This record gives sequence, structure tokens and C-alpha cells, in this order.
Amino acid sequence: MDWDQLWIDVNLATMDPNQPNRYGAIYNGAIAIKDGKIAWLGERKDLPAFDMHKVAIHKGNNQWMTPGLIDCHTHLVFAGNRADEFEQRLLGASYQELAQQGAGILSTVRATRAAEEEELFDVSRKRLNTLMQEGVTHVEIKSGYGLDLASELKTLKVARYLGEVHPVTVSTTFLGAHALPPEYAGKPQKYIDFVCQAMLPEVAKQQLADAVDVFCENVGFDLAQSKQVLEAAKALGLQTKIHAEQLSNMGASAMAANLGALSSDHIEFLDETGVKALADNASVAVLLPGAFYFLRETQLPPIDLLRRHKVPMALASDFNPGTSPLCSLKLMLNLGCTLFRLTPEEALAGITRNAAQALGVGERKGMLRVGMEADLAMWDIDSPADLSYSYGVNPLTQLCIQGQLQIS
Amino acid sequence: MDWDQLWIDVNLATMDPNQPNRYGAIYNGAIAIKDGKIAWLGERKDLPAFDMHKVAIHKGNNQWMTPGLIDCHTHLVFAGNRADEFEQRLLGASYQELAQQGAGILSTVRATRAAEEEELFDVSRKRLNTLMQEGVTHVEIKSGYGLDLASELKTLKVARYLGEVHPVTVSTTFLGAHALPPEYAGKPQKYIDFVCQAMLPEVAKQQLADAVDVFCENVGFDLAQSKQVLEAAKALGLQTKIHAEQLSNMGASAMAANLGALSSDHIEFLDETGVKALADNASVAVLLPGAFYFLRETQLPPIDLLRRHKVPMALASDFNPGTSPLCSLKLMLNLGCTLFRLTPEEALAGITRNAAQALGVGERKGMLRVGMEADLAMWDIDSPADLSYSYGVNPLTQLCIQGQLQIS
Ligand SMILES: [Zn+2]
Ligand SMILES: [Zn+2]
Repeated sequence: MDWDQLWIDVNLATMDPNQPNRYGAIYNGAIAIKDGKIAWLGERKDLPAFDMHKVAIHKGNNQWMTPGLIDCHTHLVFAGNRADEFEQRLLGASYQELAQQGAGILSTVRATRAAEEEELFDVSRKRLNTLMQEGVTHVEIKSGYGLDLASELKTLKVARYLGEVHPVTVSTTFLGAHALPPEYAGKPQKYIDFVCQAMLPEVAKQQLADAVDVFCENVGFDLAQSKQVLEAAKALGLQTKIHAEQLSNMGASAMAANLGALSSDHIEFLDETGVKALADNASVAVLLPGAFYFLRETQLPPIDLLRRHKVPMALASDFNPGTSPLCSLKLMLNLGCTLFRLTPEEALAGITRNAAQALGVGERKGMLRVGMEADLAMWDIDSPADLSYSYGVNPLTQLCIQGQLQIS
Repeated sequence: MDWDQLWIDVNLATMDPNQPNRYGAIYNGAIAIKDGKIAWLGERKDLPAFDMHKVAIHKGNNQWMTPGLIDCHTHLVFAGNRADEFEQRLLGASYQELAQQGAGILSTVRATRAAEEEELFDVSRKRLNTLMQEGVTHVEIKSGYGLDLASELKTLKVARYLGEVHPVTVSTTFLGAHALPPEYAGKPQKYIDFVCQAMLPEVAKQQLADAVDVFCENVGFDLAQSKQVLEAAKALGLQTKIHAEQLSNMGASAMAANLGALSSDHIEFLDETGVKALADNASVAVLLPGAFYFLRETQLPPIDLLRRHKVPMALASDFNPGTSPLCSLKLMLNLGCTLFRLTPEEALAGITRNAAQALGVGERKGMLRVGMEADLAMWDIDSPADLSYSYGVNPLTQLCIQGQLQIS
């Protein structure tokens, strides 16, 4: 066998549903990679003969390897700081007072519009480093704090550039329909037309987005406007996803799923009809416990319905300055288990296999399986459940992205 | 002026209530240290003349400096792993089934009893490193997973040894009355007598504990037993504190405060009588939002009453394997603000000034003030509120413990 790298003495949490054990576990396993892909894996006793002088051999010391972690929903390219607004609110200021002071999402929009590309790149790179340090190998980044053509393009360019120069792989999502920009106050339909007719074609032409997202909510855009955006995206050959059913049941998930959306995200208020639509269309339910926690929501997403209808559940940080200022995907494992009562296996599947599916890369990422990309995370833990249970001490000991060791 | 080190271009969140600004802030400040203590601080424009060839000068680049962070309630010396129990519970196992399998606190007791000192030291050192990386300079460590004389002494020795060899300062607390050991099943009074008559004198003789704690609760020890432990501790000249009013109102806080306890910890069910007792005795209310979150409690501690009666509020991780497997004091800032609605200033005071008071070291730690120990944390943040608001990207850029730079 002709391999580049080989790990032995390792337990593999393959997350491959074709493997019979929980977590798709292979105990006393081995895994080999070649040209950035997984070339062999299995029990060590079944390891075929190989030329040990040609392969870099890593001893796992009985540690656990998982697929590299995937954060499938972030807004990590933004400027400005909302700590002051957070403090004002805790000191008793009302939302109205804060809005009058220019706080809220529009303060992030102002700061992001004003920021140079380089400044945006620098703050975003630090955030990506932080995620990588805890085992993340692939991150989705949404625009949506520009809300004008130039600023949305700038955000997506920064995200694309991060993907080029940073070891972590980046998927980009155009979220022009994130909020109503001040220039269009009172004219949401006019803005949506602009998103569809001016922004989207330019984003598509410059190949800046892998997918298109929209915030469908009574405080966002309505169902028809959201559909208009997703249909315009589809017509341009782009994948789609949606912020749906976070604060109320708008029917957004079903609408998007029926259009073939990769995922519906948040979905605290999703009903069984919506769950069935996700199931029928192989659309992923992306759960965002960081925002649920930070907003002190009480309406839980319909986890049991999602289980019953076998909808794949992903879990993501939703890292953003307004509703989830938590730049940690690993924290979401604990939040997902504690607040949403996910099992640790569901939580881990949510940031590996199902997160990959939510980004449309499930064919090549999110599992340890021959032929998949060699995104590998090694952990000094007793069992995969430990990743969800304990938080703080970083158990990551090695990280390999597309065959390259980034942390070791 | 004859100093060892001087910081200029720095904003100081002194946390000193004698300073007029919020956070005791001094903008455009400077701070000098000499022989491990703060020798001068103030506005930079008021800096006295000094010999710049004899002083190491640090430029703060307009960053913020706070007192080193203090985690005044942890159980961080333990062996074993409760990830499996966490997983079983989420898979549907009942508490009864788990207890029959030997799960729960007694599994930690078994593992801690079985562990060699060196093994306990190694795992605990990693936890202390993690806390230090986020700005912690002083940690309290409780025993309470030994529950026999040898194992309690072993735990406290490990904690003491950590304090000697690790840069972080360690306060130790004897919590022999943490739970009923299996040998005393059904005989809590006999165990309490053993704690008071055999364990406590030996702990005191070997000077292994700075304070004594007891878990007063309907699932722990009753009020009379708790009082017996604290009185025995007092008779030996030891400081006291108490796990009180976490699950029910037992009157434990008032009892302990009237005995002069440093703090009452948890206190979700504390009533106004108890709050007044804390106020009257200058006892600290230690809030533990990690356990509140992890146990999905709904009864909030009486924050408004504590404010009204001017009880100092501390905030701690309660890091332990059963109810708060969260080794992060910085996370507690966000949890404390989000779940308990503390202001960011209250939260920061809770892990500096008031945490020092909860450990009986408020005279020399927890504030930036001339004469206090030079435990200093430097942060790349826009305002002190940022420490409570955002989580994930580590903003710590420098850490000085008793005058020694540990991170820079
Ligand atoms: Zn989002
Ligand atoms: Zn405790």
C-alpha cells in the first residue's frame, strides 16, 4: 500500500451510519491517507501490508479520532462590537431606547460598511483560528451585515479570501436578505427586488457564494419575499438555505425544503407539517442552541418530531454579534445536549456528517470513510461523549485538514 | 521612583469602589509594580519621574488591564470521567438505573480514591493551565471526593502542591462533608462526627486547608450537622463557607453567616432573612451559574434582594464532574449576565474583588490598588463589558501573577 500518512493505535468515531457501532466506532483502528483523501480505514489487525519507510506513521496512544468539525452556520465576518449594547440592556435600557441610540443589527451594518477589507479580514481570521484550535476544519460564513451591493461583495470577498489563505475550508453564503437596510426603511419589497435583481446576479457572476440564505420572520422578510429570493438564487444555479421558524411559525422551512433548500436553520417553532417537508426533501434541520441560550428562548425545537421523521439534525454556532456572540462550536455540543437534550452522538453527528450535508458537501466530508477528504481531529478523551459532556480543557491533540497537519 | 515594571498606554479597570468611574476605570492610565506588589497607579499624566533604564516598560496600546481573575469555588482535583453517565441519561436512563450502576458522585469518589497523587496532580494541572490561559491568577480548590481520611488528605495535598509549583495561587478548602461515603450509608451523623473528630483535626494539624466547607441540603447534610462541622472548623481556627440553599431553603446561609462564614454558595432558594444575615455578617454570596445551567434549574438566586441589601456577589465556575463540567471562569461571566441578569460590572466584580473577599484575601487581592498583590490581566478589548459579552476568542494578551509575567 502506498500511503502518505498512517495512524495506528487509534479509536475511530467514523460517524458513518454504515458502521454498526454507536458513533460508527472502530476500536483499535487504523486510518491511512493519500493525496489528501482517506485511503484505508478499519481495525488495525486488518491493516494490509505497507512500506513503513514510505509512510509517516502516527501513534494514537488509544486516543479518539473524529472527522474534522464543521460549523455550518456562522456570520463571522463582521466589524464593530455590541458589548456596549449588551451592557446597556442589562443596566435596564429598553429595546426602544437602544434602537433610538442606533444599537442593534444596524450598528453592526454601519461598522461593517465602514471597515476596510483588511480590517474585516484580520478580525475574522482570529475567529477562524479560534474555531480551528478546537478542531474545526470547515466553516460556513454568511454575509448580511453589508446590505448594500459593495458591502455585501466586500464581505463575501473577505470570506472567500479567508478560505484561500487559511487552513480551514470556507463555504460562503450570500445573506443579503438578512435585515432591511436603513435606505429601504418601510420598503422591504423594494429591497428584496434589489437583492434579486441587482445583488444576486453580481454575487453569482463573481462566484462569491456557494449558497443563498434569507431571514424569514415577522421581524425579517415575509414568506413571499423569502421565496422570491430563493427562487432567484435557484435560477442562478445556487444552493439555498433559510433562517426559519425562529420566533414564529411562518411556513418558511416547508417553502424552502420544497424548493430543494439544503437546510432550515433555527426552527424552534417548526410544526409537524414543516418537519415532514424537511424529511421529504432531505433538507437538514440546523439547530442553533447558542442563540436559543443567549436570547433566553423557551420554545424548544421539535427534536422528537425530527427524530421520528428521521430528519438529519446539524448543530452550529450561529456565531454573530447580536444573538450568539459565542465563537465556539465545541460549546454548542454541551448546549445542544443540555438545553435541547440531544444525545452526545446526535450532537457530534450535528457538527460532522449532518453539518456537511447542510453545506452540500456530504459526499466528501463529515465522515471517516474511504474516499472522503482527510479532515481529521484527534482527541485525548475516554469516549466520544466526552466532547459533549466536558468543556474548557481543550482535548484536541492533532488536526489534519485535507491531508495537511495543521495542529500536532 | 524605583519600580520593577511599568505599564503605560493602558486603561485600568481597577474594580476599586473608591474610584469614581464604573469598573473603577482609569483611562489613559499607568501602573507600576515593585516586589510583587502594586507600587503606583493613576492617570499617565500624573506619573511621577522614574529612571527608565531601571524599569521594564510595557506599552499597553490602549488595551484594558483588570485584576487577575479569581475562581473562588471549584472542585478541580478529581479523577474519573462522568461522560458515560451524561450520555446514559440523555439516552433515557433514569437516575435510579444510573445509581444502581454506581454512577453519580460515588463514581468520582471511587476513581479519586483509587488515583495516585501523581495522576491526580497531572489532570488537575491541565485544568489549572486552562483557567490560567483565560486570565485566572487565583483558584480555590475543594476536597470532597475522597470522603475518607487518607483520600481527603491526598486531595488537599495535591491542591497544596499545585499551589506551590503552579504559577496560579491556590486556596484550599476541606469539604469532607460533601456527600455520605458508602461506608456510612444510613449513618450521616456518625460520618459527621468522624469528619469533626478525626478528619478536621488532622487537616488542621497538617495545615492543608485554608477553609472548611459543608454541603447543607436535603440531599446532603442537615442544618445541625452542617453547623457542627463549621463550629468544629472555627474551634480549630479555620475559615468557613457553605454550599447552601441550592435546591431548597434550609436556613443554611444564615446559620453560616452568623458563625462568620466567608461565603454562602449557590443560594438559588435564599430568602430575604438569609440575604439580611449575609449583609449583617459581611458574608459573600457566591453565584454558580454553571451548575444552574447544567442542571437546568429554574429558580433564580435572589439577585435583586442581594443588590438591595448590598451583599457582595461573587461568581465562580463550580467546576466539578457532576453538576458543572465547565472548566472556564470566563464562560461564567456570560452565563451570569445572560441567565442571572448580572450587569457586566457586577459579573467582573464577582470574579475579582468579591471573589477575593469570598476567599478571605480581599485585603491583598481582587483590585488594582497600591499595596495589593500584582496579579494583573491585560485584555485586547474595547471595554470591560466585552469580557462578559463575547466568548470564544481569547482576548488575554498578558498575565502577571505576583509580579511575574506568566503569559506575554
Ligand atoms: Zn444566523
Ligand atoms: Zn460546589
